[in-house]
Amino acid sequence: MEIAALKKAHPDHWRKACAIRTLTLDAVAAANSGHSGMPMGMADVATVLYEKHLKFDASNPEWPDRDRFVLSAGHGSMLLYSLLHLTGSPDMTLEQVKNFRQLGSITAGHPEYGHARGVEVTTGPLGQGIATAVGMAIAEEHLRAVWGEEICNHHTYVIAGDGCLMEGVSQEAIALAGRQQLGHLIVFWDDNGITIDGNVGLSDRTDQQARFAASGWQVLTIDGHDPVAIDRAITAAKMSDLPTMIACKTHIALGSAAQDTSKGHGALTDAQLIADTRAVYGWDHGPFEIPADVKSAWETIGARGAAERKAWEGRLAGLEASAKAEFERAQAGELPASLSVAIVAHKEKVSADQPKVATRKASEMALTVINPILTETLGGSADLTGSNNTKTADLGVFDNNNRAGRYIYYGIREHGMSAAMNGMQLHGGVRPYGGTFMCFVDYARPAMRLAALMGIPVTYVMTHDSIGLGEDGPTHQPVEHLALMRATPNTLVLRPADAVETAEAWQIALEQKKTPSVLALSRQGLPTVRTEHTAENLTSKGAYILAEAEAKRQVILMASGSEVAVALEAREMLEKDGIGTRVISVPCMELFAQQSEAYRKKLLPGTNVRVAIEAGVRQGWDALLMGERGRAAKSDFVGMSTFGASAPAGTLFEHFGITAEATVKKAKALL
Amino acid sequence: MEIAALKKAHPDHWRKACAIRTLTLDAVAAANSGHSGMPMGMADVATVLYEKHLKFDASNPEWPDRDRFVLSAGHGSMLLYSLLHLTGSPDMTLEQVKNFRQLGSITAGHPEYGHARGVEVTTGPLGQGIATAVGMAIAEEHLRAVWGEEICNHHTYVIAGDGCLMEGVSQEAIALAGRQQLGHLIVFWDDNGITIDGNVGLSDRTDQQARFAASGWQVLTIDGHDPVAIDRAITAAKMSDLPTMIACKTHIALGSAAQDTSKGHGALTDAQLIADTRAVYGWDHGPFEIPADVKSAWETIGARGAAERKAWEGRLAGLEASAKAEFERAQAGELPASLSVAIVAHKEKVSADQPKVATRKASEMALTVINPILTETLGGSADLTGSNNTKTADLGVFDNNNRAGRYIYYGIREHGMSAAMNGMQLHGGVRPYGGTFMCFVDYARPAMRLAALMGIPVTYVMTHDSIGLGEDGPTHQPVEHLALMRATPNTLVLRPADAVETAEAWQIALEQKKTPSVLALSRQGLPTVRTEHTAENLTSKGAYILAEAEAKRQVILMASGSEVAVALEAREMLEKDGIGTRVISVPCMELFAQQSEAYRKKLLPGTNVRVAIEAGVRQGWDALLMGERGRAAKSDFVGMSTFGASAPAGTLFEHFGITAEATVKKAKALL
Repeated sequence: MEIAALKKAHPDHWRKACAIRTLTLDAVAAANSGHSGMPMGMADVATVLYEKHLKFDASNPEWPDRDRFVLSAGHGSMLLYSLLHLTGSPDMTLEQVKNFRQLGSITAGHPEYGHARGVEVTTGPLGQGIATAVGMAIAEEHLRAVWGEEICNHHTYVIAGDGCLMEGVSQEAIALAGRQQLGHLIVFWDDNGITIDGNVGLSDRTDQQARFAASGWQVLTIDGHDPVAIDRAITAAKMSDLPTMIACKTHIALGSAAQDTSKGHGALTDAQLIADTRAVYGWDHGPFEIPADVKSAWETIGARGAAERKAWEGRLAGLEASAKAEFERAQAGELPASLSVAIVAHKEKVSADQPKVATRKASEMALTVINPILTETLGGSADLTGSNNTKTADLGVFDNNNRAGRYIYYGIREHGMSAAMNGMQLHGGVRPYGGTFMCFVDYARPAMRLAALMGIPVTYVMTHDSIGLGEDGPTHQPVEHLALMRATPNTLVLRPADAVETAEAWQIALEQKKTPSVLALSRQGLPTVRTEHTAENLTSKGAYILAEAEAKRQVILMASGSEVAVALEAREMLEKDGIGTRVISVPCMELFAQQSEAYRKKLLPGTNVRVAIEAGVRQGWDALLMGERGRAAKSDFVGMSTFGASAPAGTLFEHFGITAEATVKKAKALL
Repeated sequence: MEIAALKKAHPDHWRKACAIRTLTLDAVAAANSGHSGMPMGMADVATVLYEKHLKFDASNPEWPDRDRFVLSAGHGSMLLYSLLHLTGSPDMTLEQVKNFRQLGSITAGHPEYGHARGVEVTTGPLGQGIATAVGMAIAEEHLRAVWGEEICNHHTYVIAGDGCLMEGVSQEAIALAGRQQLGHLIVFWDDNGITIDGNVGLSDRTDQQARFAASGWQVLTIDGHDPVAIDRAITAAKMSDLPTMIACKTHIALGSAAQDTSKGHGALTDAQLIADTRAVYGWDHGPFEIPADVKSAWETIGARGAAERKAWEGRLAGLEASAKAEFERAQAGELPASLSVAIVAHKEKVSADQPKVATRKASEMALTVINPILTETLGGSADLTGSNNTKTADLGVFDNNNRAGRYIYYGIREHGMSAAMNGMQLHGGVRPYGGTFMCFVDYARPAMRLAALMGIPVTYVMTHDSIGLGEDGPTHQPVEHLALMRATPNTLVLRPADAVETAEAWQIALEQKKTPSVLALSRQGLPTVRTEHTAENLTSKGAYILAEAEAKRQVILMASGSEVAVALEAREMLEKDGIGTRVISVPCMELFAQQSEAYRKKLLPGTNVRVAIEAGVRQGWDALLMGERGRAAKSDFVGMSTFGASAPAGTLFEHFGITAEATVKKAKALL
């Protein structure tokens, strides 16, 4: 639809959409950076969506039964900020919009979850939004089945660009959504034909409609500037049992001299261009100036859902008291009081039984305790269910025929799984966990980093956490992965040594409210090293003395996970030679760093020789080997410095010298 | 096709295929681990491919104009090992097959490049093979255009499973191959309907044929056990100008009790099951026993291409001497002698001109020198050409209309790009480099890790390498990425401080034969710090004294990249206060670690206070801060410990305290 025709046929719509367009132009010009073109191109779709369809109440951006709106093409952040401001969302003042991309503002370059309420998810790294939305839609389907339509019944809308659809993770998301028939998921594809390098055709000729259809989506194609067509398409999408992709043919940077060009993708800051564009729009208002009637019309839209929200609150209030309390507990991310009691009891039993099990198996044992109590968990695996030990008997399989099921077969899609887990957690009311081999953290990284950046407590069950994986070889053996996850801010890397620490690690992961947790778990069986029961969660200190020196202390051995047993064995050998040796279990470096200096110094006095043992690279351990401000005693490391190899696990530990003998030798060499 | 019918209609074919199947059963049983089902299912396809189509000469597995065969479903490694052994490939003795998955054998759990000639690429992490093959096919198209069909004219064949097609990277690969109309790329999809968790339908219902067709592929569907259908499909594929996907309906673990089950995916080790399967096959030979007539038939296949290979050698010999030498130089990965001369001249000019440019711009300046001399470079970017500064004027664009072009618009596909670069490098005759924002290392990780594991010298141009990226915010600002790449074995992380070091970094990257290199480059302008010309490549030492103390030396400052200028500024302030300060530029920790102990101690004597400065996390620097075996002086770090923020770059460096003032303060606190 041409601008002139659009103005004439839909003058009110046009002015509302132009408020988005001009706020975008003004904010980008003020920041002298940003992306003007996408909000200018998608303003019509967004306006119709908000005006006619999106279930939301601007004054209550966190109402649980709201529709979710995900701006997967996150560089077009001014679209979202404009919508939040115009509809009267409480955080998004005009001042914030004017401070677009400035330090301390909530209007970051790309939308960031936690800055302004109403930003449902951090986007920007392309493809993440659409993949995260799949998780939101799964959570909605599940909670609808559990709580009924009266309590949960909403849609998830996504705006995705060509970049989102070129990123591989989008395929994982599309295929998963299609398989699960997520009928409440609706994706708008901003088909503007432009990427940063030029025309999309330079790098892609995919028939996106056919691609979505191949995975079982309903596909609609419309003029993305025609409000009637947009409205009709959304209506059709909402009626479908399938997820719907609406291909919206649009003009990037509509109405500007940069329309339909890659220049239009970026920051349009030229004063003349902006003035000319305003003229084309028929918009004779100053920068950041929204005429009162337009603002008022938008605020009416923002208030449109208030009655629906209130009705929902009434229905929630009508639930039985215990059900209501349970709903609110899960929404708040609180744990049932009985959970920690059950975990302590489980620990006590394990300390007594002293099983020799792989920590992946110990994780299943813990989940067997957790899942019946914490009924909002949604587990899954990227096609390694039997290896990750993620499925407990009570869960049932989430499926288009069984939405109450709590276990998801994600397929061979580590990245899509991790992004979906983000979406579930962001949606609220559920607690996702998912498993794969730890080496495939590589595939999941972009979504895992977003979880850390957003500060959301998803749990990754990463099994086969070292060369202990054995014969599958170096392609499947993590070596650098503990280091790379530890290098990532706001991520707990928990590598338990036995079934007791594994239960403690699970407890810690579930207690988090702002931090994702990685459980690094062994393939191979490990002895129980925590044979003395404590109700206290020792893993929560990050590191603790597992075995004190008997002879005069000269050596401190530190280890995590499967190498704690190696340290204990080395200690025995050293003690036999009269060398007093302390063993410190280090299940979580991040938690240890949070302890008091006094505690840390108590564990690691500067005078003893230190040797760390871990079947991974040294990087990360240096901080503990050097001690506070570099004033360390002599130290060494037993671990990996190369990739692994294909052989039975025991052979590999010998081959790479990760043994008690090697540890003893290194410790003695330092004395 | 049922087994009985197949045996009857194609008895010779059947016996050849059963040699693969039984070798697989025997090797997996001997190892007591591995994957039996896929080789048993795809043996018919592989047999027809090798017997009738694949251009190869088993005795010369590295003949440059051979067809490439990529086992993307790498867990089925015994398929490849069987083929190599049966056809008489020189490395693959029966002894090696018997040592499947044992330490020191070349028959690793998943195929590993560099173990046995004939293994074209390391596979196992799913999706990597098909994405790597796209790069091989690009290299073939390009070299065909450059050298003519007489010298380069071959196909790339791939066997991919459901796992490969579920991984997102496959979509990036499929779309790129479709866009580029890579007609010499032929993918067999092993459509056996089974994944580890069970039936594919648990997690996927994608119409794969429609999906490939949507990206411009020719699609054929056949019975994957019918040799006539297989032959016909390959013939049709070879005739097409489009890449072809041949959907092969197969039975996993054909003929065994585990046929068509997820159990059949893994290791079939039950003696009775194996005996029963042999009976079904009509194979009354012992373990690892191949009847002479079958082995002879396979060896005839292995020798089939010898004449063609010799004819090719004749054509190569017929080239002009200089052309032949140039071809062989590029194949060997040698650099033209004139390159280092030109780089030194460029450095001299830069040292004199002393431009203040971003190192991404300095990289373009270096490429402007390199690309006209090293004419086998193939550059590209994941849709950030103007930001990564990867395109020089002379390259031309690689396209289905211009195969001689040397610049590839990869689209928003960091993962697919990196995998394709692996394929180009493995193909030989070209030197790929590709760019994206350094933060999106996350997307590319699985392919980057494989490059390191395989030991191939691809070059990543990773720009916007810190919070210096500015307003785009924390989603786009690397913080942990230098650490995570440094944690990865066999990877050079080069973070040059100015245009001189950038030229040196490029020289180092290109001189590598067994190691990939990452250039970490700034968005923001940086002063020239190497103002005194040296012909010697100082960056190749990894770290070197950039500025010596004037007053009595008390402090050593270490920094990389954009923070070297910060260190120099801090040095001036400290010297003004009479505190002698050495500045060490550390462009590459890995190369520094390779220097003599004497050199390392000379740079970092134990007596001085040390402060390292880098706009990233501390992890990785600890090794230099603690010094040899932990006997360090006091030390501190100026850098990041959280994610970044959205604001102008200068504001962020102030906000996060990465300044000369902060450095001076920390150094003084240690004195």
